[in-house]
Amino acid sequence: MAAPTTAFTPPSGVITLITDLGHKGPYVASMKGVMLGRFAQAKIVDLTHDTMVHWPAEAGFWLRRSFRYFPAGTVHVAVVDPGVGTSRDIIVAHVDRHYFLAPDNGLLGGLLEEAGERAVIHRFDWHRSNNLGLPEASATFHGRDVFSPLAADLARGKLKPSAIGPQIREVVPSWEDEPVREGDRVQGIVITFDHFGNLITNIEGRLVADLGSAVVNVGGHDIPLQRTYGDVEPGSYVALVNSFGVIEIARAEESAVAGLGVDRGAPVTVKRGG
Amino acid sequence: MAAPTTAFTPPSGVITLITDLGHKGPYVASMKGVMLGRFAQAKIVDLTHDTMVHWPAEAGFWLRRSFRYFPAGTVHVAVVDPGVGTSRDIIVAHVDRHYFLAPDNGLLGGLLEEAGERAVIHRFDWHRSNNLGLPEASATFHGRDVFSPLAADLARGKLKPSAIGPQIREVVPSWEDEPVREGDRVQGIVITFDHFGNLITNIEGRLVADLGSAVVNVGGHDIPLQRTYGDVEPGSYVALVNSFGVIEIARAEESAVAGLGVDRGAPVTVKRGG
Amino acid sequence: MAAPTTAFTPPSGVITLITDLGHKGPYVASMKGVMLGRFAQAKIVDLTHDTMVHWPAEAGFWLRRSFRYFPAGTVHVAVVDPGVGTSRDIIVAHVDRHYFLAPDNGLLGGLLEEAGERAVIHRFDWHRSNNLGLPEASATFHGRDVFSPLAADLARGKLKPSAIGPQIREVVPSWEDEPVREGDRVQGIVITFDHFGNLITNIEGRLVADLGSAVVNVGGHDIPLQRTYGDVEPGSYVALVNSFGVIEIARAEESAVAGLGVDRGAPVTVKRGG
Repeated sequence: MAAPTTAFTPPSGVITLITDLGHKGPYVASMKGVMLGRFAQAKIVDLTHDTMVHWPAEAGFWLRRSFRYFPAGTVHVAVVDPGVGTSRDIIVAHVDRHYFLAPDNGLLGGLLEEAGERAVIHRFDWHRSNNLGLPEASATFHGRDVFSPLAADLARGKLKPSAIGPQIREVVPSWEDEPVREGDRVQGIVITFDHFGNLITNIEGRLVADLGSAVVNVGGHDIPLQRTYGDVEPGSYVALVNSFGVIEIARAEESAVAGLGVDRGAPVTVKRGG
Repeated sequence: MAAPTTAFTPPSGVITLITDLGHKGPYVASMKGVMLGRFAQAKIVDLTHDTMVHWPAEAGFWLRRSFRYFPAGTVHVAVVDPGVGTSRDIIVAHVDRHYFLAPDNGLLGGLLEEAGERAVIHRFDWHRSNNLGLPEASATFHGRDVFSPLAADLARGKLKPSAIGPQIREVVPSWEDEPVREGDRVQGIVITFDHFGNLITNIEGRLVADLGSAVVNVGGHDIPLQRTYGDVEPGSYVALVNSFGVIEIARAEESAVAGLGVDRGAPVTVKRGG
Repeated sequence: MAAPTTAFTPPSGVITLITDLGHKGPYVASMKGVMLGRFAQAKIVDLTHDTMVHWPAEAGFWLRRSFRYFPAGTVHVAVVDPGVGTSRDIIVAHVDRHYFLAPDNGLLGGLLEEAGERAVIHRFDWHRSNNLGLPEASATFHGRDVFSPLAADLARGKLKPSAIGPQIREVVPSWEDEPVREGDRVQGIVITFDHFGNLITNIEGRLVADLGSAVVNVGGHDIPLQRTYGDVEPGSYVALVNSFGVIEIARAEESAVAGLGVDRGAPVTVKRGG
């Protein structure tokens, strides 16, 4: 069965933003200004602006893990865009009643690979800029000049994804491999860490749910998989399936990042315990 | 006279969030997504997400000092929750026409102690989760899975505090003693510092209003209590009653934190000047 | 022709905030609470709260560069206010269908100088506080106690700038000189840097548009002016006219701030290339 080409979910009016733009300067704010100028009732939520700069994998990871907490019909805008001003494409995807707008640079790779036939993807056609009422785009900030007006028009229901350009099937894949189970072992990586210094991996808990007393190896340490933070003494490491469904390594009442000295991209292995 | 058990203030539609979750990752955003999914018109304001991690005292302090700047009927959600996943309770308090939703871990201790009989407190009964339409809660993020849906339903007027569980009188007290006047002397602590490096104490200005030329001692320095920052030369220390009604120690045009080398919890004494 | 004294643009309901208050504590949030208490439908956008503390030039720079991305009728509130509690004035300016509310300390100097006769400026008269329904102001936080109620009333159309006090022509000038072209040379400064470590100057691209292969000198380096980041190899420096129309110095895939070791205020010269 072919994927539907007319997928449309009534917009919720909510727009989320995930970027690597940080909090200095009016970069994110000017995106919001553009959105409010086109859609005064937009409800704009900052997903986070502190993803690793120039590395689409982290933004894509968090977006994929968190979008379902927003109402159906939400427009999710992702701007980690090291290729801005070059020939990289811009895409809109409709997946499971949510809209995603991002550069075609691998950011949505994992989400779209998982969605498979449920995803309907359109590529922005620059020749339609005028018809879509877009301003002239700067060479360095498409987040404000292209993504924001498109997101606002999607969110107010004025624009359907099919109007931005042709439907496509192939997108740039994720920069990071998807963890897979091989026997009693899963290999993944540290994707990011949180404000508490907990390490967040890209390994889904369901991949190891049947392993019983599993052990997580990272940075040379073997750490037992438990249920929650309180299960170990202060200062001890604990691995658990976190609230976003992936394996996380914490150090009770301390920072695991500081303690283990590992960074994004570090390999993580989960295997059956001894 | 018994405290009223049917206290109810029409909600303002405003929800404030104070947490120790920081700005990395979609933690706070996913709370907002859940809220908007249940109450599309919610006006959500970030109080701050930079309170000291795992230390409820700072969040409780700021909440108590700032809630009155919001409209009556605002729902204030506080998530500094080191005991998440353990047996700690969740409470909703109605105080002076505002609603407060927090773990029962001392965070609201100071506010509720000050409010005394004016506070009406209900304890969340987990057995009502289903009836209240709550999702299954993760073991590690009740802020998103429990606090957020309850806050949204309170803020849209669908839920009254009495519906979440039984009324209670006793809560976990604050982790820090309330400063009291003894003779011409008040002892308190540094609770936090601001972006300028000013030290914020938990000592209310009214406790020392009659002391005339008072002196504030912190980190081995005696600092005169003045009216405003401009009252001393650049580089000099100045103490004043700040815009939230508590004693603050600043260093004109510099950082008092860096200069004095004190941290949260450091003792502060105010006494009559020489 | 005299400047119009009755300038009035229907408010958009949007309020932007730019401050040096950072993200610690409920400073910005209490401003929002006051605004929502007076104008429940206000749409409040954080421009940024990370401008250099006590230096109005950076906030004024960003405000001037970004306000046009917001809808006409937006109220822009700027609080970088080292003179709070002293006799410095508070002003409201109407420029090009936008409203600006700030201390009269040079913050709006550049914007108002550029606007010239298009600006209509009123000075807040403290004697009208009572009539305007303002609360008693603290000595240290006029952002919350004065700016916020005025902004809310402006944004809901209840208050016209002429009602806050007399019209004035002279304001405190900007702390920094405006760059001017002298022959084939323009001298300016580094105003700030962004999250990527790119240096942002106050030199408008249009001042050097005709110079052909221009060269930007900063921190002892001569850097060629190009079109976009991708025009050089990783690790190399590149200057370009950024998305806000001013000259920016970047280091491809690295931080120019770290590499060049320059700070805000550092001199920058643009001249015709060799």
